[in-house]
Amino acid sequence: MANSQTDLRANSLVSTIEAILYLKGQPLSLAEIADCAGCARDLAHEALLDLMNDYAQRDTALEVVELRKGCYTLQLRDRFQSLVERLIPADLGVAALRTLAVIALKGPLPMADLVDLRGSGAYQHVQELVERDFVKKRRYGRSSMVQVSEKFHRYFQLDVENQNSAQLELALNQLRSSLPPDEDAAEDPEDLEDPEDLDRDSVDPDLD
Amino acid sequence: MANSQTDLRANSLVSTIEAILYLKGQPLSLAEIADCAGCARDLAHEALLDLMNDYAQRDTALEVVELRKGCYTLQLRDRFQSLVERLIPADLGVAALRTLAVIALKGPLPMADLVDLRGSGAYQHVQELVERDFVKKRRYGRSSMVQVSEKFHRYFQLDVENQNSAQLELALNQLRSSLPPDEDAAEDPEDLEDPEDLDRDSVDPDLD
Repeated sequence: MANSQTDLRANSLVSTIEAILYLKGQPLSLAEIADCAGCARDLAHEALLDLMNDYAQRDTALEVVELRKGCYTLQLRDRFQSLVERLIPADLGVAALRTLAVIALKGPLPMADLVDLRGSGAYQHVQELVERDFVKKRRYGRSSMVQVSEKFHRYFQLDVENQNSAQLELALNQLRSSLPPDEDAAEDPEDLEDPEDLDRDSVDPDLD
Repeated sequence: MANSQTDLRANSLVSTIEAILYLKGQPLSLAEIADCAGCARDLAHEALLDLMNDYAQRDTALEVVELRKGCYTLQLRDRFQSLVERLIPADLGVAALRTLAVIALKGPLPMADLVDLRGSGAYQHVQELVERDFVKKRRYGRSSMVQVSEKFHRYFQLDVENQNSAQLELALNQLRSSLPPDEDAAEDPEDLEDPEDLDRDSVDPDLD
């Protein structure tokens, strides 16, 4: 009886963690998972290993993987990248994708800093990216912060923290089947090369 | 050889459709699924039945179901509603949830019509709901349209088209563990009772 109750609880924790990864839609640390599940980290870790094993044994579109030490995600298997490419809105240009890459790498970041990095075109890009659900804009006082959304993680499933700028930009660009000329290279020659001044708490009263 | 190729193609279509349902994150018609998969509807339907059967046989957090005739979704099983409740941002008030219910029922709808239905508090609610990724705001010329996001569907998995207002409002409110008093009942006594005048193409220059 005690044993079957333990099993039941263990099974339930495995699928609870599956539900958490699905709902959150982004890579989560073991601490975050345990917190959402309301259990100890060692129990969460054990259940995660079971869940990853379950998914590894099934030939489905999804997998649960440890992206890097202690960070887990439910994601599409690599072999569906061509499908992702096909389903990305066709009218999202290279310039907007580059802005998306900056937000993924450096976000959450103040809108003003994004404009410093990407030029004033960033306002339009963020508008497009918010409309398409790839970016979230959140107001803090008179400033706005931008960061990638859960949908970004579903589509791009990139281990952002382990990517350097060039790799991420390349990965995003490769998702486009045909690359139009870079619309904003002339305007922003130093794209992605100015990571030092991102910590300013700048205020941008003209936003929104 | 021909047979194993056919099997391979069939297996691949089943998981391609799984990938599409995961990426889109909202209920899709058979026509939309077939279009995304690039196959005929009868093939898509056959693969969907296989996929639903696969999920039905596994004891996991997710299921693939036909919500109503010809409309399919990948969603959390009902038994995870208490988890959803726990993970909804605690500071999202009843008034914002009511606005969310209106957007789910009547969206995509012009922002101006939402304000007619929910009062001027709707501006603040939409801002909060966009920040939390439950709502998308899209600009059309000088007007804005609002509609629920993929994340809304992951969290609320409600068959919006088959819900009437009262049911949906009740369902959203029941997701809150403890209901504070309705902050805006006095201001908007006719909430959700004016569905006739939603087709106006109103313009709202003050938006954003």
